[in-house]
Amino acid sequence: MAIVEVTIVPLGTGSTSISSYVAKCHRLLKEEKVKYQLTPMGTVFEGDLDEILMVIRKIHEVPFNEGAMRVSTSIKIDDRRDKKGSIEEKIKSVEDKLE
Amino acid sequence: MAIVEVTIVPLGTGSTSISSYVAKCHRLLKEEKVKYQLTPMGTVFEGDLDEILMVIRKIHEVPFNEGAMRVSTSIKIDDRRDKKGSIEEKIKSVEDKLE
Amino acid sequence: MAIVEVTIVPLGTGSTSISSYVAKCHRLLKEEKVKYQLTPMGTVFEGDLDEILMVIRKIHEVPFNEGAMRVSTSIKIDDRRDKKGSIEEKIKSVEDKLE
Amino acid sequence: MAIVEVTIVPLGTGSTSISSYVAKCHRLLKEEKVKYQLTPMGTVFEGDLDEILMVIRKIHEVPFNEGAMRVSTSIKIDDRRDKKGSIEEKIKSVEDKLE
Repeated sequence: MAIVEVTIVPLGTGSTSISSYVAKCHRLLKEEKVKYQLTPMGTVFEGDLDEILMVIRKIHEVPFNEGAMRVSTSIKIDDRRDKKGSIEEKIKSVEDKLE
Repeated sequence: MAIVEVTIVPLGTGSTSISSYVAKCHRLLKEEKVKYQLTPMGTVFEGDLDEILMVIRKIHEVPFNEGAMRVSTSIKIDDRRDKKGSIEEKIKSVEDKLE
Repeated sequence: MAIVEVTIVPLGTGSTSISSYVAKCHRLLKEEKVKYQLTPMGTVFEGDLDEILMVIRKIHEVPFNEGAMRVSTSIKIDDRRDKKGSIEEKIKSVEDKLE
Repeated sequence: MAIVEVTIVPLGTGSTSISSYVAKCHRLLKEEKVKYQLTPMGTVFEGDLDEILMVIRKIHEVPFNEGAMRVSTSIKIDDRRDKKGSIEEKIKSVEDKLE
């Protein structure tokens, strides 16, 4: 089970706003089966690593399809093989220790 | 106004779990004035960049205080000067475009 | 043409040293055709994005093959479509402006 | 001893090129005492963590001084307390294992 955060940023578009690109990525994600969650600094996926990387590869193209000529994409993989884990469990395991 | 994501990972601790370190960081954050939010892949701050960096510098020490001898900390700064912005607004500006 | 930096870090191995894992990744890279360069904070690739991601997927498994149970892999993609570009040219384009 | 990689990217500048910003950052670094090295994906520093973070805070402002209104800066800290370490030693410790 992998939990993966991705941030996709087009460079040189002439606008400081990137929400329209992120929204277009998320429209594409609605067609996909993988579990994901929007956060203030990226989109976090949970599931099979290869399925997630395939989806990320697709959304990496979105800014180019919208006319961008340079894209900076950062991917952070947290791949744990000693337990199944989930997005909710990662948060819960910290919050439980704060009670 | 800056929005900053930080991930703090101790290396070589002999355990795959890092939630206890994250929880200790968050106990320290409760004493600080800066706004923050736990996400599945890190902690996101919102506010004055210098205040945020000072708090991050403090929590970077937490794993060392718990006996770790090597810490990998990644900090991602989204610093926008053309509008005030907030964690909620970054999310809303994407979600509004998905309706 | 994409230039991609990857950092692969095993968690919970009980040792602060990760050079043996990096060396094993690089032994595997010697069998691959993709261009790469070791830097103090990762390995930088240059070439076709899909070929690079396939190689990264392979080396992401190396720490698991060595007994690690959790791996944090970060991938930073600089994908430029307005010019071919190269690792050397990215450095040169900065150094030329410093003369 | 910390080894830190920083990448500073202005958003919305209307040009895909960022080498002029990187060059201006490096002109500022020439006035500083900290050890640094340009790599294809960022600039790697070696030295006292607090000194390095102060210098990074300065160069984070460079794109704003050049008219950018949004800057994405990523900082990756490798902070090791069990040995002194250096940029060269990190590379050598991998290369020695490849002979």
